[in-house]
Amino acid sequence: MTAKSQKNWTGDPSELLRVGEGFRLADIDPSSTPGYDGDKKDGQDDLESGADELDEYQERLYAESRSEATNASVLLVLQAMDSAGKGGIIRHVVGSVDPQGISLTAFKKPTKTELAHDFLWRIEKKLPEPGYIGVFDRSHYEDVLIGRVRSLAEPEEIERRYAAINEFEKRISDQGTRIVKVMLHISNEEQRERLMERLDRPDKHWKYNPGDVDERLLWPKYMDAYQVVFERTSTPWAPWYVVPANSKWYARIAVQALLLDALERIDPRWPAATYDVEAEKARLAAS
Amino acid sequence: MTAKSQKNWTGDPSELLRVGEGFRLADIDPSSTPGYDGDKKDGQDDLESGADELDEYQERLYAESRSEATNASVLLVLQAMDSAGKGGIIRHVVGSVDPQGISLTAFKKPTKTELAHDFLWRIEKKLPEPGYIGVFDRSHYEDVLIGRVRSLAEPEEIERRYAAINEFEKRISDQGTRIVKVMLHISNEEQRERLMERLDRPDKHWKYNPGDVDERLLWPKYMDAYQVVFERTSTPWAPWYVVPANSKWYARIAVQALLLDALERIDPRWPAATYDVEAEKARLAAS
Repeated sequence: MTAKSQKNWTGDPSELLRVGEGFRLADIDPSSTPGYDGDKKDGQDDLESGADELDEYQERLYAESRSEATNASVLLVLQAMDSAGKGGIIRHVVGSVDPQGISLTAFKKPTKTELAHDFLWRIEKKLPEPGYIGVFDRSHYEDVLIGRVRSLAEPEEIERRYAAINEFEKRISDQGTRIVKVMLHISNEEQRERLMERLDRPDKHWKYNPGDVDERLLWPKYMDAYQVVFERTSTPWAPWYVVPANSKWYARIAVQALLLDALERIDPRWPAATYDVEAEKARLAAS
Repeated sequence: MTAKSQKNWTGDPSELLRVGEGFRLADIDPSSTPGYDGDKKDGQDDLESGADELDEYQERLYAESRSEATNASVLLVLQAMDSAGKGGIIRHVVGSVDPQGISLTAFKKPTKTELAHDFLWRIEKKLPEPGYIGVFDRSHYEDVLIGRVRSLAEPEEIERRYAAINEFEKRISDQGTRIVKVMLHISNEEQRERLMERLDRPDKHWKYNPGDVDERLLWPKYMDAYQVVFERTSTPWAPWYVVPANSKWYARIAVQALLLDALERIDPRWPAATYDVEAEKARLAAS
């Protein structure tokens, strides 16, 4: 399905960007704009009209959950190399929604306490409640990405995690959470330019960390680790979407389209009143 | 101080709306727009330009906190009778800020576990981290508002709480949190109209609860309880502001102005780089 409010799609992003059988990350051009027949300006217009649609869906999702008729929620998982634009997605796509309906978690390097538990322990605690759009800025996938690249766990443990993730995601999907997993895909050159901009601008210095270059030197290993993640954990109940992200405007409307698609499938409705509307009008008028 | 970005103030809202010596809630006209020489359209324009200023302040606050040079944060406490517009403030004022810098908590009826602890226990856990703008949708003040009106605790316990709140707020203020406490003030008649609208519109039925009328019948007792709160807990380190809220547009720019004032006083700066910028440029270029 394509979002009604975004005019310039010629194909369905939830099909075009989905990781399916035989997917190869190396075949994806980070500068491409699959299925979109428009430029930056069109993208900004679509983002704005899409925001209104997203806003209404979010409110209906929340409203319906109050009636206890449903457990539905959405979970957007964002993964990417540094500077690929996770922050921009949160600011410009998620940020257009009423903050009262959003549950945002940025997962950092695990604490000692977190490391003493299974890697999914801290994740489970941050899952969205019914009615919410949960957003994970990094996630349990770090444990099979940096975990694999930097050998933070034994190979057998890394291996175990893929299946554990699939079971975990199946369980929360069965409980009513629609999972949308997005990798924002930029090129190695694009990352160099974006990091350089952070070094060029004093108001961006705080965003730069010398460790960013250390990670950057491991780029091919990260791409391999992502490829394995896609092969092992893109499932019918929790598919991966690889979003070309050299064009920030494209990445934003694409992620918005994926969220709209998830909500359209949930199709939340305004719940019926659980009280006698006319009787309440009379009580209120007399008060 | 008046926000640079909001053009139509003729007085300083952080002075005009502040609860000081001799304040009487009964003297405040909920339809008034103190210190503002403009109409709804002006207010909307000011809200938009104020949003840009707020956005930059928030990012600087966050950036500075990453440098560990400061513990500064902001805490906006929102209290009001039902339908006074807390949700609108969160959506339109708080919602204009990058969600990555906001820490929002809606306090509901306390759980059994929460009731087993001191009333400030659950509050302390939700205080904003350094660099964040925390927002409390209801707060510890419920424990001296509904707590008093509905006698949910002994009078001596209610009495004890005012001083406990002042000490608590002094402590977190000393730790670097700038506290802005806002009561949105609507009239009894305005509330009836707003609740009636919820009953008139099927897409608003979920927002109405028959208990709203029960609370409404206690209106004078709530106004008395607010008056006591203002007398006992408006302190130099955590002042109360009473914002006339019959005009939603006024309430929104006024709360935005109070937030801007708090941030202006913190005056967060972009932190200096903690690494050698030129050396990093060379490393990055070679990567």
